[in-house]
Amino acid sequence: MTRALALHPDRLLPADPTTRGIARALYAEVADLPIVSPHGHTDPRWFADNAAWSDATQLLLAPDHYIFRMLYSQGVDLDALAIPHRGGTPATDPRAAWRLFADHYHLFRGTPSQLWLDHVFAEVFGMDVALESATADRYFDTIGEKLASDAFRPRALFDRFRIDFLATTEGAQDSLDAHHRIQASGWQGRVVTTYRPDGVIDIEHEAFVPAMRRFAELTGEDVYSWRGYLAAHAKRRADFRAAGATATDHGHLTAQTANLSTAECEVLFARIVGGDWTPADAELFRAQMLTEMARMSVADGMVMQLHPGAYRNHNAALFASHGRDKGADIPTRTDYVHALRPMLDVVGNERDLTIILFTLDESVYARELAPLAGHYPCLRLGPAWWFHDSPEGMRRFREMTTETAGFYNTVGFNDDTRAFLSIPARHDVARRVDCGFLARLVAEHRLQDWEAAELAQELTSGLVRRAYRVDAPSSSPMGSDFKMCDSVAA
Amino acid sequence: MTRALALHPDRLLPADPTTRGIARALYAEVADLPIVSPHGHTDPRWFADNAAWSDATQLLLAPDHYIFRMLYSQGVDLDALAIPHRGGTPATDPRAAWRLFADHYHLFRGTPSQLWLDHVFAEVFGMDVALESATADRYFDTIGEKLASDAFRPRALFDRFRIDFLATTEGAQDSLDAHHRIQASGWQGRVVTTYRPDGVIDIEHEAFVPAMRRFAELTGEDVYSWRGYLAAHAKRRADFRAAGATATDHGHLTAQTANLSTAECEVLFARIVGGDWTPADAELFRAQMLTEMARMSVADGMVMQLHPGAYRNHNAALFASHGRDKGADIPTRTDYVHALRPMLDVVGNERDLTIILFTLDESVYARELAPLAGHYPCLRLGPAWWFHDSPEGMRRFREMTTETAGFYNTVGFNDDTRAFLSIPARHDVARRVDCGFLARLVAEHRLQDWEAAELAQELTSGLVRRAYRVDAPSSSPMGSDFKMCDSVAA
Amino acid sequence: MTRALALHPDRLLPADPTTRGIARALYAEVADLPIVSPHGHTDPRWFADNAAWSDATQLLLAPDHYIFRMLYSQGVDLDALAIPHRGGTPATDPRAAWRLFADHYHLFRGTPSQLWLDHVFAEVFGMDVALESATADRYFDTIGEKLASDAFRPRALFDRFRIDFLATTEGAQDSLDAHHRIQASGWQGRVVTTYRPDGVIDIEHEAFVPAMRRFAELTGEDVYSWRGYLAAHAKRRADFRAAGATATDHGHLTAQTANLSTAECEVLFARIVGGDWTPADAELFRAQMLTEMARMSVADGMVMQLHPGAYRNHNAALFASHGRDKGADIPTRTDYVHALRPMLDVVGNERDLTIILFTLDESVYARELAPLAGHYPCLRLGPAWWFHDSPEGMRRFREMTTETAGFYNTVGFNDDTRAFLSIPARHDVARRVDCGFLARLVAEHRLQDWEAAELAQELTSGLVRRAYRVDAPSSSPMGSDFKMCDSVAA
Repeated sequence: MTRALALHPDRLLPADPTTRGIARALYAEVADLPIVSPHGHTDPRWFADNAAWSDATQLLLAPDHYIFRMLYSQGVDLDALAIPHRGGTPATDPRAAWRLFADHYHLFRGTPSQLWLDHVFAEVFGMDVALESATADRYFDTIGEKLASDAFRPRALFDRFRIDFLATTEGAQDSLDAHHRIQASGWQGRVVTTYRPDGVIDIEHEAFVPAMRRFAELTGEDVYSWRGYLAAHAKRRADFRAAGATATDHGHLTAQTANLSTAECEVLFARIVGGDWTPADAELFRAQMLTEMARMSVADGMVMQLHPGAYRNHNAALFASHGRDKGADIPTRTDYVHALRPMLDVVGNERDLTIILFTLDESVYARELAPLAGHYPCLRLGPAWWFHDSPEGMRRFREMTTETAGFYNTVGFNDDTRAFLSIPARHDVARRVDCGFLARLVAEHRLQDWEAAELAQELTSGLVRRAYRVDAPSSSPMGSDFKMCDSVAA
Repeated sequence: MTRALALHPDRLLPADPTTRGIARALYAEVADLPIVSPHGHTDPRWFADNAAWSDATQLLLAPDHYIFRMLYSQGVDLDALAIPHRGGTPATDPRAAWRLFADHYHLFRGTPSQLWLDHVFAEVFGMDVALESATADRYFDTIGEKLASDAFRPRALFDRFRIDFLATTEGAQDSLDAHHRIQASGWQGRVVTTYRPDGVIDIEHEAFVPAMRRFAELTGEDVYSWRGYLAAHAKRRADFRAAGATATDHGHLTAQTANLSTAECEVLFARIVGGDWTPADAELFRAQMLTEMARMSVADGMVMQLHPGAYRNHNAALFASHGRDKGADIPTRTDYVHALRPMLDVVGNERDLTIILFTLDESVYARELAPLAGHYPCLRLGPAWWFHDSPEGMRRFREMTTETAGFYNTVGFNDDTRAFLSIPARHDVARRVDCGFLARLVAEHRLQDWEAAELAQELTSGLVRRAYRVDAPSSSPMGSDFKMCDSVAA
Repeated sequence: MTRALALHPDRLLPADPTTRGIARALYAEVADLPIVSPHGHTDPRWFADNAAWSDATQLLLAPDHYIFRMLYSQGVDLDALAIPHRGGTPATDPRAAWRLFADHYHLFRGTPSQLWLDHVFAEVFGMDVALESATADRYFDTIGEKLASDAFRPRALFDRFRIDFLATTEGAQDSLDAHHRIQASGWQGRVVTTYRPDGVIDIEHEAFVPAMRRFAELTGEDVYSWRGYLAAHAKRRADFRAAGATATDHGHLTAQTANLSTAECEVLFARIVGGDWTPADAELFRAQMLTEMARMSVADGMVMQLHPGAYRNHNAALFASHGRDKGADIPTRTDYVHALRPMLDVVGNERDLTIILFTLDESVYARELAPLAGHYPCLRLGPAWWFHDSPEGMRRFREMTTETAGFYNTVGFNDDTRAFLSIPARHDVARRVDCGFLARLVAEHRLQDWEAAELAQELTSGLVRRAYRVDAPSSSPMGSDFKMCDSVAA
């Protein structure tokens, strides 16, 4: 006997009938709005090449660290799941890997992975039975057949998903070749890049040296001098804007910023590129570069995103065998109040600058992030991120930020995913949870129904479009128009 | 078209019909109880002079950092809002400032500011349309006219609000002139002061030197010797008790306390007043003074309040241009377990001493504060404070403290406000949220209905009256009656 | 007039009717399952001797620090409650102590203590009136009479409570005499021990020296050499397994672990036993011993439990007068991500090892513990502990861990109690709260009803039995079968 798979139309809406009725009405108005995905990690070659994906395992299982980290935590072997290691991809039969995944699908009960996957299975692939051992082959076969058809190629799905804007993320050392090919192809889908320079900023990253070499080649600058290094960043930021970017992104271990003099920067940078640095130097350099990037954003209008707080590659043996992004990044306690102050001393009162803060440490929502964003003109709060991109995580985000920062200092939803097929599912979860939260405020008479309806539109569309400058890209420099709030600058 | 403004009778009560019914019944019994406001920042000159307030902008907008911090965070200029800066008040038309506020009123959706303001608009001023651009002038005119009438003078509103007890806060260097005038006036309203000696304890405060000079003048003591300094505090505490004070208040950066010997205190104090101190000395002196204040509270019966954890004046440019209290104070992570131990070593087991702890760091509610208050006889928990004085903040406070500390180690509500007109609104929010919390416990059969009814009275009236000694002020020294719990002292 | 005492059949289930209906159905299937209590502090002599308990005060009040800490926090004298101090038990009339407790029973409103006690009063003793001053004597008399009957002796209650497995906790220096007598008695109740070696690991414990002496006597090893010390642990672990133990337990101040070389260990150990150690040495030694214990668990199959984060004996005066476990242990902020890494470097990828993590710092649930347990094969999450063993605490545990770690990286419920009579009450609370949580997921269509039914069984029975190896004890060494996950070891 197999179990039916059917997505309930009221899923994720609050159980109380009054509240659910309000939530349902709010959701109905935003359910079909186009998707704006301003931050993510899909592969731009998919849209440049528009080649068919191979099979369920390669598309849905092997690249998704949400899935294989859970399986690994319960003793499932990574080789048996076809997860690539440093030596290459194991010679695992994709179907066998899929069966193993199906055997353990119960592990995902209560997790967002199950919500996303069931949505993909039902909505994208039209499955009507639940995934379990008995249906593993039926899934593998159906998905494989569909993926081979033109209707399931990347661009066709992009259109079917009603994606209006999709940002990928590339390093400062990236040629942007895939994006150039998308632009040259005449295809109308709006896939843009995001400037993520961590690889040439984090001297503790194992690929810093070759990244710097490539950074020099692409810019023609003397990237080993402080002046040339900054000039190279400015050039590449312009390259990225030309490839559609409206934003930069910075994935640092901490939120530490610094405000050094030029002379201090030159001395520090000489130690960094000279190889004579300490871990404290590495941290100070990353800190200073956040302030430099903020200054450049004032000049060129790019939105700045800060994603701190992940202890990367916590599992030493797994990192040795399998490399990065294998589900072993663990959040840590993160300070923002002291850490951001040096940068805010420089740019905090710029009202045309937007710095979007993310966190993996929910204890800072109400204590630090909402008060900061509820005061500084340049600060906005990114949505619940990564481990917290989930119904309970999103609910806590709203409950702990709204009363101090309001809704208008937030920026809508980010899917932050490399799992392209899950993008509609993830946005749908966010819309449902936000409508549920708004509905509770209406049911408790803390918000009028028409206010909630306006807010549902804003949380789904307005805020993200404005925060990420989706409709007014920053490719024309706005530097001269920028100014500090008058009363402070005066 | 304008929108109606009407406060729903069930606002803030839980949506579930069973729970709402219980909450409604509980609330009905406490809704009209007199207000006891044991901690706040209203200006005693209002009640001494009983002069009319001028207009909506000067009364409601310009002094309220909850409001202008949000507007500032969205790029609104402070000058245009008539916010005073160090050079004086900008020559902004109050009506123009009010219109600007009205244009941005949607920013407050989902925040307690909107709840409080709508309550003030509807209940105090009788408005029946919502504030928005189109109604800004109607609001400004109506409020202005009413404020000019006798019925809206401070004492009339004090009576209309059914305030039974209102504590203001004055520094150790304050003459208490306004309070003396209130006492001499024959008016029956009970407005008392609170002893807040931060200005002569925090050497890092920019006005420490003149505050000490005034402290010396008012007491006639040699405040630059350790012995004379303590004697001056004792004298001023007596002055404050004579002006009705039942409590002291201490707004420190951290909760750190110390337990130095007299000889160590003398050496430290010599460095402080000699100008030869380090930041560590400044912190140690503040820490020691908390213990000294606790000792004096054992002797004179004044309730001690500790409000730690705000990083003051985080925005350097704004502090330079506008000074303190401009919405740029940001909470920080705060430790209590280690920090309070030195003071608790001295007074922790005193059962007639009351020390009320507040926090801006909600992560300590369940982890540190509830366990401490659920053990030490002298400790009580102040209500959700400042950024957390909000429906969700109050709910989290109850959910995270009750199971370990119970209800009886809490002290009712504090409005902590300088916005006098919002006092009824704030107390009403607290009563509604507490009744909603109690109702949930009844609906889940975790509390009997009669227990909840008793607790609603306690949370509204009983706990605050006893904790702050409202009905048994401390003006007669009780030192000799105080004792440690026998079994510990023995 | 007295008040009725009646446990409502729907207590602790969510108020929303739909959700309650689902919860009720889930609970009905698990309400009567046998109790598995894998971690607690009952006295094994009760089951060895099977003697009658004396009276309500000695059984229910004097040993329960949850109760007397609350009374003490409100100024009640410990002597008057018959709480033992270092000099002995005060000569307090047990009936007078009980009356004093009854006078203050309202303090427990909203706390789990009241839920547990009312369950004990109603279900175990058949009381039908609530405890208050007027009923104190009736309670004292009825309980005293029942305790004198055979039906209320420890073994009879063990059977009546349907306890399937009960673990006590003994130190490494314990003779296990009581457990040997249970085994020799022929009684069928399964009462086992747990290896808790803190007393011979924590050099800062005041009884370290005599504990080590006894450790040497019991093992015949040279426990003052590093090699002999480890051998002694191995011997005692075998002794404990022979007395039924399936687990070890470690109650450290922090979660710090270390990974020293043997040479470093020998040098450190020489300082420890030589008396020439610093607090940093003491911490490093505790840290290293967690890794050693984990290594031994790989070899002998014992489940390892880590309970860090309690600042013990915070009240110095009370510790001086009354000693340990008097309600003055306070949780502190606890780091796991950095602290556990050295141990995880050694054993983190062992898939046949189980290390169960507990915390008193809820801010780590979503940030650290769920991500760690959702990745490392050896890690599992213990349930909400101590101050968080409460309806709200359990709800937060599920809400903050499930989405990242799932249900299957948790281990069911621990009562962790020395209050034997409260064991059914505590398990009942956990079952109700878990069913309420599952019911909400079903009502919000985040889980199917049949999935929730399976999970209710798992949370009540399956997970705890497997995690603690209740049905496959570790007494036969499994060392040779253990292996690291292939792909990592390869």
